[in-house]
Amino acid sequence: MEDKTRPVIAIDAMGGDFAPLEIISGALLALESIDAEIVLFGNEKQINDILDSELSSSSKLDLKNIKVINSTDDIKMDDSPSEVLKHRKNSSIFMGTEFAARTKECAFISAGNTGAVMACSLINMKKIEGILRPAIATVIPLGENKFVLLDSGANSEIKPLYFKQFAIMGTVYSREILKIKDPKVGLLNVGSEEKKGTEPVVEGYKLLKESELNFIGNVEGRDIFNGAADVVVSDGFTGNILLKSIEGMANFFFTEIKNIFLSNFLTKISALMVKKELKAMKKRFDYEEYGGALLLGIDGVSIISHGSSKAKAIKNAIRVAAESLKAGIVNKIKNEVQNQ
Amino acid sequence: MEDKTRPVIAIDAMGGDFAPLEIISGALLALESIDAEIVLFGNEKQINDILDSELSSSSKLDLKNIKVINSTDDIKMDDSPSEVLKHRKNSSIFMGTEFAARTKECAFISAGNTGAVMACSLINMKKIEGILRPAIATVIPLGENKFVLLDSGANSEIKPLYFKQFAIMGTVYSREILKIKDPKVGLLNVGSEEKKGTEPVVEGYKLLKESELNFIGNVEGRDIFNGAADVVVSDGFTGNILLKSIEGMANFFFTEIKNIFLSNFLTKISALMVKKELKAMKKRFDYEEYGGALLLGIDGVSIISHGSSKAKAIKNAIRVAAESLKAGIVNKIKNEVQNQ
Repeated sequence: MEDKTRPVIAIDAMGGDFAPLEIISGALLALESIDAEIVLFGNEKQINDILDSELSSSSKLDLKNIKVINSTDDIKMDDSPSEVLKHRKNSSIFMGTEFAARTKECAFISAGNTGAVMACSLINMKKIEGILRPAIATVIPLGENKFVLLDSGANSEIKPLYFKQFAIMGTVYSREILKIKDPKVGLLNVGSEEKKGTEPVVEGYKLLKESELNFIGNVEGRDIFNGAADVVVSDGFTGNILLKSIEGMANFFFTEIKNIFLSNFLTKISALMVKKELKAMKKRFDYEEYGGALLLGIDGVSIISHGSSKAKAIKNAIRVAAESLKAGIVNKIKNEVQNQ
Repeated sequence: MEDKTRPVIAIDAMGGDFAPLEIISGALLALESIDAEIVLFGNEKQINDILDSELSSSSKLDLKNIKVINSTDDIKMDDSPSEVLKHRKNSSIFMGTEFAARTKECAFISAGNTGAVMACSLINMKKIEGILRPAIATVIPLGENKFVLLDSGANSEIKPLYFKQFAIMGTVYSREILKIKDPKVGLLNVGSEEKKGTEPVVEGYKLLKESELNFIGNVEGRDIFNGAADVVVSDGFTGNILLKSIEGMANFFFTEIKNIFLSNFLTKISALMVKKELKAMKKRFDYEEYGGALLLGIDGVSIISHGSSKAKAIKNAIRVAAESLKAGIVNKIKNEVQNQ
């Protein structure tokens, strides 16, 4: 009986810079606080070796909620999506998404090749009826000012209606997972006036304005860091560049600050005095807190984690996956898209 | 005889959040170190009142290198470019650009309405023959990793050949003004592979690869903060969003750091110990060091300063304007575009 509501999380154990060790560690970490069943896809021997070694080093570890399914194909970071769909059906990503599609209350997580995850999720889980294009929704962590950005890379091309659908999906995500009441939606643009931007953006503005969403108008690069919007909609090209720039800039700043504190004896002493506060600040910008980006618009829950994910990120991805299943965000998106 | 090579700088005294006082102060500041003639356009009475008051408070001030030309129309920040061209011909921006166009070795500077500056510069100074679209070139200050971004907002639409022309203009700017030998050109994109991005971007990649420029390939949001490229080319929509995001994020970070140091007694002491280094860090990110963005591709030197420019930014804009005239960047762009 219990199994009926218990989430199942299919995980690509082979994807990401620190796979399979950190992926498996993340899964074990998640099971300490999340009631779920985990299915690891990948090289069975490698995975079991790691599980055995973890088991021998921890007395409280219980593997009854972990299954392993062997996959034989490898996907490299530069394999094209079409290559994967044609020749890598025995890969952890293809098999995991296929498994998630035919299993009740099952989500999929991978820190591997983004294009492959998108292609396999789309083929196996299918698109939600009425959705034109799935989009990648990423939470940008900025302390109190966090927002969901979508599309952050699934589509380079854009049409006006995509913006509206992205806004609907982002609103559901923000409301159900981030617990924001009546999320404010902003359209990423180069000015606040209605007529600003490219043609699809101007048309998209109109559709958003006529919708029942909590649309607050255009938001500029400056505004998004002031908490102007909870959901920021964009084409996937601009969104992806923005996302990676924020990441690059955050790294750059933290390195600069570190260098300042390492300048001399006095600054090193100073560093000790603000250590706690700096650590808290860094945590407020930590994308690992959100575990990964959701591919929204498909008939299932699929999470694309950062390539450099470590155990903590994977644990949080599992938490978000379980919450997404529990909140039924796929059904909520279906309903809201039909009523659009 | 001296006048022949002496630069003339026409300045919109009425544009910007702190006009006319900070604009005029910036002009006076510039004259302390730069040998130029300055012509201020705006409300003659207001300008003269400020000059008189500055004159009475400083004994060493000499106004022989400053002229004032009266303008009667006001341009508001939300006036459309077509509105300005039709009905604001007696504005400081229209008159200043018109003056710069017919005066030898004369540049124009404004911290006012960007669209108006672009439109008036284009109408009065004309486009360089062979250039399809002028572009706004902005220096992104990141300490040693600074780069020129263009287009940062002149055009929302993009065609493949624009990228190549932006790259040529950015290379001239980087080489002549920032003194970078053989500047590395990167194409802002969502991945490093040749086939990534929208159609115009993919085509633009090919043109850049075939060119004689020092093209290093695609650069992503992450790379640009690591000094990967000296010149980053982009469509104006993405470029503008990137530019404002960098600004927003820098403000956000510096506010966070300030708050950390204000947390408690210990952190306040700590702040005193790193004060000098923090100040130096802030200076490395200070856009005021570069004074403003150059509108490249027109047959003249026109600088668009930030709306919030204070005296220091205006002084630096005057320095960049004088350097641009001296280096003959317009002629260099003409030559390189003809040889493309």
